[in-house]
Amino acid sequence: MSNTPEGGSLKNIVSHCKEYGFIYPSSDIYDGLAATYDYGPNGSELKNNIKEYWWQAMVRMHENIVGIDAAIFMHPTTWKASGHVDAFNDPLIDNKDSKKRYRADVLVEEYIAKIEGKIAKEVTKAAKRFGDSFDEAQFVSTNPRVVGYKEKIESIENRLGTALGSGDLADVKALIEELEIADPVSGSKNWTDVRQFNLMFSTEMGSLADGADKIYLRPETAQGIFVNYLNVQKTARMKPPFGIAQIGKAFRNEIIARQFIFRMREFEQMEMQFFVKPGDEMKWYEHWKQKRINWHKALGMKEENYRFHDHINLAHYANAAADIEFNFPMGFKELEGIHSRTDFDLKAHEEHSGKKLQFFDQNTNESYVPYVIETSIGLDRMFLAIMSAAYTEEKLDDGSERTVLKIPPALAPNKVAILPLVNKDGLPEKAEEILNEIRFDFSFQYDAKDAIGRRYRRQDAIGTPYCVTIDHQTLEDNTVTIRERDSMSQERVSVPELIQKLHDKVDMKHLLKMQ
Amino acid sequence: MSNTPEGGSLKNIVSHCKEYGFIYPSSDIYDGLAATYDYGPNGSELKNNIKEYWWQAMVRMHENIVGIDAAIFMHPTTWKASGHVDAFNDPLIDNKDSKKRYRADVLVEEYIAKIEGKIAKEVTKAAKRFGDSFDEAQFVSTNPRVVGYKEKIESIENRLGTALGSGDLADVKALIEELEIADPVSGSKNWTDVRQFNLMFSTEMGSLADGADKIYLRPETAQGIFVNYLNVQKTARMKPPFGIAQIGKAFRNEIIARQFIFRMREFEQMEMQFFVKPGDEMKWYEHWKQKRINWHKALGMKEENYRFHDHINLAHYANAAADIEFNFPMGFKELEGIHSRTDFDLKAHEEHSGKKLQFFDQNTNESYVPYVIETSIGLDRMFLAIMSAAYTEEKLDDGSERTVLKIPPALAPNKVAILPLVNKDGLPEKAEEILNEIRFDFSFQYDAKDAIGRRYRRQDAIGTPYCVTIDHQTLEDNTVTIRERDSMSQERVSVPELIQKLHDKVDMKHLLKMQ
Repeated sequence: MSNTPEGGSLKNIVSHCKEYGFIYPSSDIYDGLAATYDYGPNGSELKNNIKEYWWQAMVRMHENIVGIDAAIFMHPTTWKASGHVDAFNDPLIDNKDSKKRYRADVLVEEYIAKIEGKIAKEVTKAAKRFGDSFDEAQFVSTNPRVVGYKEKIESIENRLGTALGSGDLADVKALIEELEIADPVSGSKNWTDVRQFNLMFSTEMGSLADGADKIYLRPETAQGIFVNYLNVQKTARMKPPFGIAQIGKAFRNEIIARQFIFRMREFEQMEMQFFVKPGDEMKWYEHWKQKRINWHKALGMKEENYRFHDHINLAHYANAAADIEFNFPMGFKELEGIHSRTDFDLKAHEEHSGKKLQFFDQNTNESYVPYVIETSIGLDRMFLAIMSAAYTEEKLDDGSERTVLKIPPALAPNKVAILPLVNKDGLPEKAEEILNEIRFDFSFQYDAKDAIGRRYRRQDAIGTPYCVTIDHQTLEDNTVTIRERDSMSQERVSVPELIQKLHDKVDMKHLLKMQ
Repeated sequence: MSNTPEGGSLKNIVSHCKEYGFIYPSSDIYDGLAATYDYGPNGSELKNNIKEYWWQAMVRMHENIVGIDAAIFMHPTTWKASGHVDAFNDPLIDNKDSKKRYRADVLVEEYIAKIEGKIAKEVTKAAKRFGDSFDEAQFVSTNPRVVGYKEKIESIENRLGTALGSGDLADVKALIEELEIADPVSGSKNWTDVRQFNLMFSTEMGSLADGADKIYLRPETAQGIFVNYLNVQKTARMKPPFGIAQIGKAFRNEIIARQFIFRMREFEQMEMQFFVKPGDEMKWYEHWKQKRINWHKALGMKEENYRFHDHINLAHYANAAADIEFNFPMGFKELEGIHSRTDFDLKAHEEHSGKKLQFFDQNTNESYVPYVIETSIGLDRMFLAIMSAAYTEEKLDDGSERTVLKIPPALAPNKVAILPLVNKDGLPEKAEEILNEIRFDFSFQYDAKDAIGRRYRRQDAIGTPYCVTIDHQTLEDNTVTIRERDSMSQERVSVPELIQKLHDKVDMKHLLKMQ
């Protein structure tokens, strides 16, 4: 077989995900709901396996980390304390004529994209004119028209950045008016002021006639850990350094949600907050950066697909922060964040709740509010990272092609496919017998339809690492063929060996032992 | 040890759940959020184990059942088609003076409860008067005052049932006025009309200036399966009879949510919809009733704690329905429902989406909309059922007492506790060595503090089925003591035997093989 470029385009991955039961647009029969997706049969298995890998690596492998599962609904004061009520906003602008609403910064970015389009056009024209002797780098740095475009872009970007950074929304509007940006729908330039729009979804709980209680769908899972800090510390008898881990849904009313499951309005996070003694936080920050990158790399999805991005501009609550970026089809993007959050959150909850959220250190006879190191990974992004690295189109030696998902075996939706060579001669019965031995240990597929080659292709397309074929020889000597997904190599083993062989290849504990 | 009454009162269970890290009130530091709870370290493990038991029994054990994981947000037309927008209501009434809102039917029921209280009072009085010769049955059927009360109750119940059944809300109000029911807070009888109040939580998605899109938090997970019927059937290559299973959150704005986690506003369901050929539904309905009760009984939580309740009054979409009721501390209540839903849902979605949701049977050359058998269990209720059956206070032979959670071993939050007898002499190091052999196979606790008896009590209280004690003999002959939670019996085994022994006792597959 010859190697073709690995990793798929986002478009190919989206359509493969739908065709093979990984991800469907939500409410597809009603033409979908914007930026919302449903996980299908193979997708839900893969998602569950990612959760289990994270939970085992974080909770089971660490005696000083415990899990919780907090509700999506929380007391509204939580979001006052965390700052989300006041500061979790996007700058929006309305067009007075079309009544359409836009993100003000995105309108400006789209204006910039148009200028970039003009640059690209000039480059294409010049390339045609000069043919083989065309030097693009030289052209874009010397051609007066292109240089002018680039200067204009730089000036707009600087002004927008300054205005957003300082919260000067009037200047964002002034910029839109100066650039004469028109509503893409109506062409009107009749704009309202720019205002902040909160990204939390709200709803009303209870049914008091005199105004129901407004509550929010949590925009992050972290606060569910902070408000439970004291209960967990006491009932689980923990003392710093210790962590609380959680997997759960969060919701953000993004104006522009896009790139498939990379940015959704409903998404799932896997977060761990690690509580340490003030002053120890940098040691633990480095520790968790290393631990988390090891967790990723144990999956074998190529070292060069990961990189750290250390934050220069820190959020108000952080004193250090880094992203683990992954090489998605759209380029390197944030997959996980490791943040040193100081005592910002616990102190804010102390202030708003009136409860002491401190730890009394019996060695020093002192109480302190712990500092926090957070590791936060998007479950859906992790799913997309795996699909991106796994999706492979290969040309085989016999000239045929195959699409194969090289999913890490421990995470694959099905560990093994059981395939009777023909659907007669007692082979299905023998297959059933083998199935009943493995079904308690491994997720599997049974497939008796079509030629064996076609069945292999189907299993390749859903990432099944091993195919077990039952043939006439099986009836004689109780041996089967195991085919390995990536190499397509086959070997013959006895049925009693089969289960142990599969355990050796697909059990999650092998990944956990590597870390 | 002597047997004391098994099963705890709800009050004892609630406080045990909080003290031992199973369940905390949500946002506890802000004094909680009504009818919302957070699962703590032991609770989240138990909850995960229940999910896994259900998922494996339904999905892995059935080649013709696949799982999905649909979003909480769905296209709003879904809820129009399902009938929830128009008919998922409670009848509410406001008091004009106090501005308080009530469920009208509950006001009437509370009035009835007061009459029942009067009957009870008469009975107590008479019992005192007649002493040993008192015959309660005879008394309540002959005493004129009691008979009068009972007739009044019957007449009120009939009128309320008729009014609610026919949607005659004006008569519900008339009944409240005739009975002169007063606002329990203010004593006022100044009522508004009775109106229907929808139980779905709504929120707004996107940010269109001219009215954002109103969407709902799903009030049940079933519709997430129905709208995905076609995608799943095609991409997973299924044909009836086949099932789609799902675990996920659902939300209902109950006016009166109570009884701990039995009825919450945010809860989790485990549902399976089984698609069959029309005409076959009764066969499959009986099949799934049996299968589901077997799943429960395999847990060993006493046969007499379960009973079927066959519905006489069927929902508009059903042609057969039964509950599996469990003997909770509050009495027998619904734990799971098995419903024959006909083709109501798929036909409604056909109508509202314009898509054909049919299966083409190649054998008969006919298309049909499948009939559906649903099995639907509340995950939180299952959690409460397990805690109810497990919670036991025992008086031991030495006169001491213990509280032990007799959780089915395969579901216990921790399978084993590793306890060095003393925290010195090389025993912690030996314990660590053993830990590193078992940590990849079993969830565990490590505890080296306090006397061994106290540590056993702590493990009893969180339901750990096995305690492994490392003592000085362990250093000599590599044997340890295993103590079994329920019998408290101990035996000595070699470390190499330990892992296999634990697998034999706690692996989930033993439960699955029983069904």
